[in-house]
Amino acid sequence: MKEVGIGIVGFGTIGTGVVEGLQRNGALIAERAGARPVVRRIADIDTARDRGIALAAGVLVEDAEAVVADPAVDVVVELIGGTGAAGEVVRRALEAGKPVVTANKALLAERGRELFELAGARRVDLYFGASVGGGIPIVRVLREALAGNRIASILGILNGTCNYILTRMEAEGLSFDAALGEAQARGFAEADPSLDVDGLDTAHKAVILASLAYGFIVPMRAVSVEGLRRVSATDIVYARDLGYRIKLLAVVKDTEDGIEVRVHPTLVPLDHVLASVSGEFNAVMVRGDLAGETLYYGRGAGRYPTASTVIGDIVDVIRNLGAGSPARVPAMQAGTASFRPMASVRTRYYLRLALLDRPGALARTAAVLGAHEISIASAVQHEQGEADGDYAPVVLLTHEAREAACDAALEDLGALDVVGSAPLRLRIEE
Amino acid sequence: MKEVGIGIVGFGTIGTGVVEGLQRNGALIAERAGARPVVRRIADIDTARDRGIALAAGVLVEDAEAVVADPAVDVVVELIGGTGAAGEVVRRALEAGKPVVTANKALLAERGRELFELAGARRVDLYFGASVGGGIPIVRVLREALAGNRIASILGILNGTCNYILTRMEAEGLSFDAALGEAQARGFAEADPSLDVDGLDTAHKAVILASLAYGFIVPMRAVSVEGLRRVSATDIVYARDLGYRIKLLAVVKDTEDGIEVRVHPTLVPLDHVLASVSGEFNAVMVRGDLAGETLYYGRGAGRYPTASTVIGDIVDVIRNLGAGSPARVPAMQAGTASFRPMASVRTRYYLRLALLDRPGALARTAAVLGAHEISIASAVQHEQGEADGDYAPVVLLTHEAREAACDAALEDLGALDVVGSAPLRLRIEE
Repeated sequence: MKEVGIGIVGFGTIGTGVVEGLQRNGALIAERAGARPVVRRIADIDTARDRGIALAAGVLVEDAEAVVADPAVDVVVELIGGTGAAGEVVRRALEAGKPVVTANKALLAERGRELFELAGARRVDLYFGASVGGGIPIVRVLREALAGNRIASILGILNGTCNYILTRMEAEGLSFDAALGEAQARGFAEADPSLDVDGLDTAHKAVILASLAYGFIVPMRAVSVEGLRRVSATDIVYARDLGYRIKLLAVVKDTEDGIEVRVHPTLVPLDHVLASVSGEFNAVMVRGDLAGETLYYGRGAGRYPTASTVIGDIVDVIRNLGAGSPARVPAMQAGTASFRPMASVRTRYYLRLALLDRPGALARTAAVLGAHEISIASAVQHEQGEADGDYAPVVLLTHEAREAACDAALEDLGALDVVGSAPLRLRIEE
Repeated sequence: MKEVGIGIVGFGTIGTGVVEGLQRNGALIAERAGARPVVRRIADIDTARDRGIALAAGVLVEDAEAVVADPAVDVVVELIGGTGAAGEVVRRALEAGKPVVTANKALLAERGRELFELAGARRVDLYFGASVGGGIPIVRVLREALAGNRIASILGILNGTCNYILTRMEAEGLSFDAALGEAQARGFAEADPSLDVDGLDTAHKAVILASLAYGFIVPMRAVSVEGLRRVSATDIVYARDLGYRIKLLAVVKDTEDGIEVRVHPTLVPLDHVLASVSGEFNAVMVRGDLAGETLYYGRGAGRYPTASTVIGDIVDVIRNLGAGSPARVPAMQAGTASFRPMASVRTRYYLRLALLDRPGALARTAAVLGAHEISIASAVQHEQGEADGDYAPVVLLTHEAREAACDAALEDLGALDVVGSAPLRLRIEE
């Protein structure tokens, strides 16, 4: 059987998973792909560590460029992450006419346009299935399965760390900090968790999903991103009492005013299927004009789930090499959509205010909101507990309003003497 | 832009959905596929009915053969269903070197081997994404996304009619007949519902999923199939009290003794994600050795969801025509697995017996089970109600046992004078 040389750049968690998977299921993969993938070269700055994988002498090297340049390497798998060295590896491989498989969401979100264009111009495959959703094949679904659909919306729980933290906060009444500490102790969160908990990782993935659905890369600086740090155990209880669960969602929507792409802690109804996605799991709900709502659920990270999707992409590339059909599916879908800035997004809001316990305080708050044409759908104030000096938390759910109006209202509310610390604003998806 | 001629055989619910989808999203699909699909010819025995779709004169004809033979037709879409005329259409198209897209699960389950071999020999595409799961792209996921995985198991709710009936039986305490009548009134069940409620439709789909995972077509006569008719409202209540919900499941498993393929009403734990799939929705849970568990959920039938998947396949075929890569993905996966007959399957059982209300009746029942090496995990007898003359229902959950042993035990139990009407046996998946 014909062999295809695989070169891997980055021999960390995912890289070892890919090599292990290719070794363990090699015969099966070869039969399905029509040729045998053989790992010919691996680059990593750490060539000494024992990863428990048997490699022939000389396969593991330090120099990434040697992998790309090796004539025995037909396919380059980029798994180092980040936008610097990884970008160079991908660019050089594409320029050399070698198909690339990558799991690098940051790279594609930041430099996707350049790389997609390069792949298109050279007619070389650029596969990135594992950049979103780990073992969930959402990239393939959007690029291929739903190609007949106009995509109305995508709602995704795309960061397992955040979902684990929120699940533990609800289950045990933990504070954000305590739940984060637990996630770190259990290996679900990095020592520096900011990429996850501040929403950037989810935003990178949202940008990629939007590019698949609508054919353009939203600049990261245009995407509204809020993380989890201000969500408290109190909010989780209030939300549940109101019939909602808080999830960090990527929201991508096709509206009359353009494509929305935003990431924020979001109240979803308890009976919504995304509300039941717990722990470190990910899920993506896509609404297409033909398919209706379809949901994709699984492990969004981890060695083997991510390797599963990387290998699925490798099989695709091998099939394309065998059939002589490089760039058979364009890396980027066609599309002519435009972006809708956050200020003009319309949504419902959850507002938690620290309100002075004084007659008329709520009325003054409502007046400020009304002046910005925001009407209150319901208000909740628990009689006991949680009071902070003279201030007590009050939660308001609003009817749909424009983001710019909510911004302005929050600024005015902050200036009221009856309002204590800065109000918390979360958004609602029904 | 280049055009690709589409010929459609069968202009019923799905056929009109496909034509409507191709018309409505034509520009988007053309850009994504790289060529414009143009419906050049449609065959249906009813050419008179107004389907609300504008077609050029001469497009709609009675003769299916004219569609296949038309030189302007590059891709044949078979949507007539059944295994007779549909099989001829598919065979002739493949023999003529024309790629085929079909949604016909019965045809593939009954004649898949012959058609897959023909497609392989002629190197022509045979796509069948819509044969399982309607708008859920489970066929593509198994053929492509999970190609790196050894598939350990597939559990599927694959028939919306059955799932609707079970959901209504639980929600309203309806009998099977009443829920079936409601499903028929709401258009979720055919006038002759036997293909659905007797499990044959689910079995066809299970056979296709098994062929994708393990590379061989299980003969339909070898598949153990049980439908819903014997499940009563009482069983649903007992199951729920025991922490389970009853679903009609397709179960496909890789075991040391071969591949299991079976369809039956199944108790699944209430906290299992498949237990929460309600109404007419479908879902498939796949366990791969790398990906772990992934779930795919959506509308398993209906005009537009099914059309979504048919059009996704058409886009694939167009991409292959454009890239000159026919049969790039083999219709059938490689595999050398063998089939495990039902008699040697091991599972846990739910047994509902009508037991004479007399001391020692349960002990004699347990003795019969014990003689066949089946041990009881729990027994439930409600104190009141449901008694049938001198007999009262008793529900036993067993530990894991061999199907052949359970068959023999049920036969022996039926001969006991303390056991009334034939015991009901359901199976459990944890």
